[in-house]
Amino acid sequence: MGKLIVQKFGGTSVADTDKIKNVAKAVLKEKSLGNDVVVVVSAMGHTTDYLIKMAHEISQTPSPREMDVLMSTGECVSIALLSMAIQAQGHKAFSMNASQIGIMTDGVHTKARITEIKTEKIRKKIEEGNIIVVAGFQGITEDGEITTLGRGGSDTSAVAIGAALKADRCDIYTDVDGVYTTDPRIVPNASKLKSVTYDEMLELASVGANVLHPRSVETAKTYELPMRVRSSFNTDDVGTLVQKNIDMELCKPVTGVAVDMSKVRIVICDVPDEPGVAAGVFSTLAKEHISVDTIIQSYAKLHNNTNDIAFTINKTDLAKAKELFPYFSKNITEDKIHVDENIANVSIVGAGMIDRPGVAATMFDTLAKLNVNIKMISTSEIKISCLVDADRANEALKALHKAFNLGCDIIATVKGDLPEI
Amino acid sequence: MGKLIVQKFGGTSVADTDKIKNVAKAVLKEKSLGNDVVVVVSAMGHTTDYLIKMAHEISQTPSPREMDVLMSTGECVSIALLSMAIQAQGHKAFSMNASQIGIMTDGVHTKARITEIKTEKIRKKIEEGNIIVVAGFQGITEDGEITTLGRGGSDTSAVAIGAALKADRCDIYTDVDGVYTTDPRIVPNASKLKSVTYDEMLELASVGANVLHPRSVETAKTYELPMRVRSSFNTDDVGTLVQKNIDMELCKPVTGVAVDMSKVRIVICDVPDEPGVAAGVFSTLAKEHISVDTIIQSYAKLHNNTNDIAFTINKTDLAKAKELFPYFSKNITEDKIHVDENIANVSIVGAGMIDRPGVAATMFDTLAKLNVNIKMISTSEIKISCLVDADRANEALKALHKAFNLGCDIIATVKGDLPEI
Repeated sequence: MGKLIVQKFGGTSVADTDKIKNVAKAVLKEKSLGNDVVVVVSAMGHTTDYLIKMAHEISQTPSPREMDVLMSTGECVSIALLSMAIQAQGHKAFSMNASQIGIMTDGVHTKARITEIKTEKIRKKIEEGNIIVVAGFQGITEDGEITTLGRGGSDTSAVAIGAALKADRCDIYTDVDGVYTTDPRIVPNASKLKSVTYDEMLELASVGANVLHPRSVETAKTYELPMRVRSSFNTDDVGTLVQKNIDMELCKPVTGVAVDMSKVRIVICDVPDEPGVAAGVFSTLAKEHISVDTIIQSYAKLHNNTNDIAFTINKTDLAKAKELFPYFSKNITEDKIHVDENIANVSIVGAGMIDRPGVAATMFDTLAKLNVNIKMISTSEIKISCLVDADRANEALKALHKAFNLGCDIIATVKGDLPEI
Repeated sequence: MGKLIVQKFGGTSVADTDKIKNVAKAVLKEKSLGNDVVVVVSAMGHTTDYLIKMAHEISQTPSPREMDVLMSTGECVSIALLSMAIQAQGHKAFSMNASQIGIMTDGVHTKARITEIKTEKIRKKIEEGNIIVVAGFQGITEDGEITTLGRGGSDTSAVAIGAALKADRCDIYTDVDGVYTTDPRIVPNASKLKSVTYDEMLELASVGANVLHPRSVETAKTYELPMRVRSSFNTDDVGTLVQKNIDMELCKPVTGVAVDMSKVRIVICDVPDEPGVAAGVFSTLAKEHISVDTIIQSYAKLHNNTNDIAFTINKTDLAKAKELFPYFSKNITEDKIHVDENIANVSIVGAGMIDRPGVAATMFDTLAKLNVNIKMISTSEIKISCLVDADRANEALKALHKAFNLGCDIIATVKGDLPEI
C-alpha cells in the first residue's frame, strides 16, 4: 500500500517558473512510487524581501496584522503556479491555502503558533486523486484573521500537516543535500550523515547548523514523524533522515560539530551578591523579548561579596540590549558591563555521548593543544559547547572534527542497516 | 449625520507605494468630511500582467481554478499596503479579502458572478471606527473556492458592496476625470458631463467610452446606487455623477457621442430564406461564446428567395469565428461570407432623444453632408449607432459632436442645480 508523504520546497526551490517545473517533476517522482503526496511550498525566491521593502516604503512600523495579509500572498502565488505545473505534466493537483485547509493558529501576528490542522477537506481531495499543494508559513485564526508563522514557518507547516495527517514521512527539500558532521565550507572532508536523532538535530540547529528550524524538529519529535533533509536539485539523493533514537548501539559518541558566530557575550562584573539582582537583569531583557542563551555566574568573590555574571545573546539584539543597560539594576553601573562581540560558540553534538565521560575531556584537550582559550562552557545531555575567540573558531572546528573521527570515510552513525522510511 | 461612501481605486491609482500613499490621502479626505468609508482596490499596476506571464510560462492552458488562486493575490497585496498607508497617516484601517467579508459568487472561475455580499462583519468593523479596505475583483464560493469576477471586476465589487451596505454613493476613481460628451483625444472641445443617467452610461460604455464597465453600471442601476466617475489625480474635482433619471426637463436630446473601433462586420450573402438557417448561424457562434452585436437581415430578394444577413462581432473573436464558418449551415458556402474589418461604430446617446424624432434625421443628415456612407444602423431608446468606414470615423464623430452642440460651452446636461449626493 502506498505511503503518505509530505514534501516541502523552500523559496530557492521555487524561485522562478523553470524551478517550479522541476519541483513538479520531483513531486511526480514521489507520486510515481505509488504514494499520496502533499506538497508544502514557500514564497518564490525574493518575493518576501520585495513585499517587506514595499511595506517599509509605506511605513516604518507597519501593523503586524497587515504585514501578515501582505506576506501570505507570496505562498498563494507559489501554490497556484506549482499546481499548474503539476497539471501541465498530466496529473491532478489542487492548491489549498491555510484558510481552505483550516490551519488554525493563535492570533499572534507575524509569529503565530499552530493550534490545530483540520484534515477533513485535505483528505477528501487526496482521495479524489489529487496531489495537494499547500501554502506554507500561513495560518488562520478562529475569527478568520490571516496569520504567519514567523521564522522556520514553512518547515513547521509541513511537519504539522504531516503530523495531522499521520503521514509516513516529511521530506524537507532544500539547497543542501543533507545534514553534515560539520560545515563543509569550513571542513572540506565533512561527511553527510545518513541519520540523526531529533535531539541531535535540535542541538545542531541551535548551535548554527541552519538546515532545519528547531521549531519544525520539535514538532516532528513530538509526533514521531520521520523527516528527511534532501536536495531539491538532486532528488535521487535520499539525504539525511531525522528520526527518533532507533535504539541500536551507537557506534560514535559524537554525530557532528558546529560553530555559531551569531552571538555576543555580555559580562557584568562585581554584581552585588544580593537576592534579585540577577533576576532584575534577565527580567529586563525578557520584557523586550531578548533571548538569553548560556548564563554563567561565578561564585561570590570572598573579598567583596560580588559575582560576575556572563551571558550570550543574539548579535541582532545587541543594540536593543545596550539601551536596557541603565535599567538592569541601580546597583549595576554601566562601566561594569562589558560586551564581547568577537566570539564564537563551538559545539559537539551526539546522542552517543551520554554516559561516555571521555568526550568532554577529549574536546577540552583538543582545544588546549591548539592553545584556544575557552571563555565559557555550556552542556546538555547530548551537547557540549565552548565559547572561544571568533578568529580561532574554524581552526577549533577542524580539529574537533578530526579528533572525533567524523571525516568522510565513515558515513553511517549507527551500526547495521536503517529501516526504510 | 455622516454618509457611507464606497471608493474604488484601479490598478493605475495604486501602481507603486507613492501612489498608494496618495490614495490614502484621498481616502482620509472623504473620511474628514465625516463620512464612513469603504475602499475597494485593484491589483497594483502591472501585477496582473506579471502573474499571467508566469502562468503562461508554466502552462498554455492553466486551469481556471488555479488562475483565480493566482490572480486574487494581487488585490491582497494592495489592501495590505493601502491599510498600512492609512494607518501611517494616523487613522484606523482594516483590510478584508473576499473570504473574510463573504463576497459570495457562483463557481464559474475567472468570470464569476456575485450572488450575495455578507455585511455583518464589515459593518461591525466600520462601527469600530475603521476605514475598511476591500480586495476588489475576487469572490468566494459556498465551498470556499476562490473566484475572480473577470472584466470590470473591481468596479463591480465596489458597486455591489455599495448596494449591499446601502451606501450613499460609490466613487470610481480612475485616470480620467469624468465622463465626456465624446473622446477628448479626437474632439478637443469635448466637454465633461456633470451628470449622466445609468442608461446613458450603459449605452456609452457599450459603444466604446471605456470609463466604466457596463456590468458595474447595471448593478448600480438595479440598486439605484449613485456613482461618481472621478480622477484619482485630482480629488478636488467631483467628476461625473451617474444616477437614475432625476426627472427634470432634459435640455439636450443628446448627451454624448462615441466611436467604437473594436468590431468587425460579417456579411453572409444569399442565405436561403428557409426557417432555421439564421438560427444555425447564431447558435453556432453562441456555442463558442462569441457575442454578436447588431444583426441586420435584409428582406428576402424576390428573384431567388434569399436574404443577406449582416452582423458585428468583437475583433478578438474573429479568428475563432472564421473556424466556425464551415459549420454555419450546409446551405452557406464560404464564398458567400464576407468579413469587413475596416469599420467603426459611431453612436449618439441621450435619454433626451426619446420622442424627439428629429434626432435621427440630424444624425443621418450630418453624415450625408460629409459624404460618409452608413453601412448599418442600430438603435435603442436612447442610442442611435451607425456603422461607417473606419477611416471616416473621427471626422464623423467631430461633426456629430458639433451638430448636437456638445462643445465645452455647455457643461450641464440638465436644467437647474443637481441635488448634492
